Amino acid sequence: MEGDPPLRLRVFDLNCWAIRYLSKRRQERVGLIGDTVRREGFDLVLLQEVWSEQDYSDLKSKLGSCYPFSHYFRSGVIGSGLCVFSRFPILDTLLYQYSLNGYPYMLQHGDWFCGKSVGLVVIKISGIVFNVYVTHLHAEYCREKDAYLPHRLVQAWELAQFIRHTSKAADVVLLGGDLNMHPEDVGIRLLRGWTGLRDAFAEAARFEGCENGCTLIPKNCFALKTELLPFPLGIRIDYVLYKVTEGARPPACEELKTTKGTAPGMDIPFSDHEAVMATLHIQRQGQAAGATPSTAEPMLVDVVTEARTEVDVGLRAARRQRYSTGRMAVLALLLLLVQAVAALGALAGLGSGQPFPKLSFSLLAFLAIGVLLLATGLHLFHTMEVKMLQGTEEQMRMALRALQEQP
Amino acid sequence: MEGDPPLRLRVFDLNCWAIRYLSKRRQERVGLIGDTVRREGFDLVLLQEVWSEQDYSDLKSKLGSCYPFSHYFRSGVIGSGLCVFSRFPILDTLLYQYSLNGYPYMLQHGDWFCGKSVGLVVIKISGIVFNVYVTHLHAEYCREKDAYLPHRLVQAWELAQFIRHTSKAADVVLLGGDLNMHPEDVGIRLLRGWTGLRDAFAEAARFEGCENGCTLIPKNCFALKTELLPFPLGIRIDYVLYKVTEGARPPACEELKTTKGTAPGMDIPFSDHEAVMATLHIQRQGQAAGATPSTAEPMLVDVVTEARTEVDVGLRAARRQRYSTGRMAVLALLLLLVQAVAALGALAGLGSGQPFPKLSFSLLAFLAIGVLLLATGLHLFHTMEVKMLQGTEEQMRMALRALQEQP
Repeated sequence: MEGDPPLRLRVFDLNCWAIRYLSKRRQERVGLIGDTVRREGFDLVLLQEVWSEQDYSDLKSKLGSCYPFSHYFRSGVIGSGLCVFSRFPILDTLLYQYSLNGYPYMLQHGDWFCGKSVGLVVIKISGIVFNVYVTHLHAEYCREKDAYLPHRLVQAWELAQFIRHTSKAADVVLLGGDLNMHPEDVGIRLLRGWTGLRDAFAEAARFEGCENGCTLIPKNCFALKTELLPFPLGIRIDYVLYKVTEGARPPACEELKTTKGTAPGMDIPFSDHEAVMATLHIQRQGQAAGATPSTAEPMLVDVVTEARTEVDVGLRAARRQRYSTGRMAVLALLLLLVQAVAALGALAGLGSGQPFPKLSFSLLAFLAIGVLLLATGLHLFHTMEVKMLQGTEEQMRMALRALQEQP
Repeated sequence: MEGDPPLRLRVFDLNCWAIRYLSKRRQERVGLIGDTVRREGFDLVLLQEVWSEQDYSDLKSKLGSCYPFSHYFRSGVIGSGLCVFSRFPILDTLLYQYSLNGYPYMLQHGDWFCGKSVGLVVIKISGIVFNVYVTHLHAEYCREKDAYLPHRLVQAWELAQFIRHTSKAADVVLLGGDLNMHPEDVGIRLLRGWTGLRDAFAEAARFEGCENGCTLIPKNCFALKTELLPFPLGIRIDYVLYKVTEGARPPACEELKTTKGTAPGMDIPFSDHEAVMATLHIQRQGQAAGATPSTAEPMLVDVVTEARTEVDVGLRAARRQRYSTGRMAVLALLLLLVQAVAALGALAGLGSGQPFPKLSFSLLAFLAIGVLLLATGLHLFHTMEVKMLQGTEEQMRMALRALQEQP
């Protein structure tokens, strides 16, 4: 296939911010996204935060004629929010739900209910097999004191491992999504180092869009200005990453574009995020050795070590929470037992009458039951959290050993 | 490598039934398993239901000299129970937790808390890459009215998909575990058909063990006799399955053995399950096309259709439960609102005094809060269940379309 003209692939990636009842002007924006994507005729459209299946269905009926193939990934209570529209047949799909994703009781953040995942669709274009991944990692609510960093690192690691293990037969690997990490963050370095993925923004021959490729900018009328105060230009957290595994010359990124606070030719944005649009050139050639993690990134040992340290910090915090919730459950249980003994004593006429007024006694018992249930639930949750952090920490340790043993 | 002598691989697989505080003579049996496995010198030991990490550590220190490589897979509240001991270096691991695994409120069954998963370890022996999978699917508590069949089918499908997507670079795929399915069950047929895996029992040139290869037999003193009443010989639910993906002649199963109700030379069994011991012959040769699902199993369309029907039955049941728990939550909320209005009315002195005695009023409010919390939790759970069943149903539909479109 060496003589074939290169394949030109146009990819659209966007976090759509389409939360039913909460996101502003949602239906109008989803309609606008559909119109633009239909008009522009991309090859692949990777969307995140399409939380409502109705929105997906609306997009599907609008895009059916130019993107006859699509897939919506279901998971969690609310959903994964991930979907893919493709001009080329989707041959297969797989969903991997991250083992950790925040806390169910952090209702104001709500990530836990979303079942954050990575979705894989396999497509074949002119004989080239593409493994296309779409994902959305846990949000960062406070950069200074980021309580979710260990969870996001576990997700970045699982994402990297999932891509490595599932992409061995693919010619091209493509990942699009809202990674909720700045380009220099340890999670991005880990993901890129461990998989060998290239950043389309860094590789692009031509760039047009927000300065530094930012995808969350203060100029966007829906973006939370307070979160962006330390970053007057905005931040880059949405990515298109790619690599070839074997048998192909590394794809070239001909052009990368982002929207700049409004949808093209409109006065409102698609979303609170900017869209990322990449044009890739892919040429098949003879056998070329796939880049192994070690050759692609000599600093990988440092990156994995740094990530492992952060996971370890999270592990210690999770262990403390597991302990304190367990202790609270035991205390509530003891209180209930004491009450039961007192009530039995009163029934058997041992004491001189009822020691407490009935109302307070019942209220206390109900309170103890409530605390017991809640603390037990939290204890179970943190037990799972500890296990998952431990598991990732151990995998990273194994990876480090393998890296260090390499010549 | 055509001229190389075949590689002889000896595999030990066992559901260890090592539940702390619950399983009878646990420590004695775990010690016995360790002793036997060390003495026999298998190449690979695949264990399930090693729920206590302490038991794993004990085994690890006992087996360290002959099985220097091992991995314990963590997941769920209790753990996955899965671990692998290997004579050869483990190069990489990955854990995939099944999206559905019973119900948290079925405490007497407890599967939900275990985070049932499939673990993958990658090993390389004499240049041959082995993807070794170990798993344990949801138990079957009542064969006549198996409420967990849709969940187990989702697990079998996810297992098959996970194996297909992750094994493309492997020379040999090996799966061991307690699949909780009889050989003719739709889940086994689906798994085997969709992956092309062969059943070591069916392929074995020599067999020694329980009749029909049964691994849960009435003769075993720990097995639950009542569950086995309809099966006087026992049932076969533990398997060693294998295939080659490419570049190798299909491995031959030289011998398959099971224990027969007691550990060799002892008067107690290893577990309530029998151990499965397989000896495989693997020879590398030139390029041979990997068996595709369609050629390996012409009846695959029927199997996938049957499995999809069962998933659909589960989906309808889950939707009903989602509806009824949602309705209960709404009713509890309404009751609370009515109480709040009555209490506010009484406080504002609108009514003629308090309409209820204080105690009953408070108890009713607490009851309503309890029901509200419980029903909301259940509703969320069944919402996730519906999504996962829908997702699998859709993947199966896509697979069916792909199968039917094949020439």
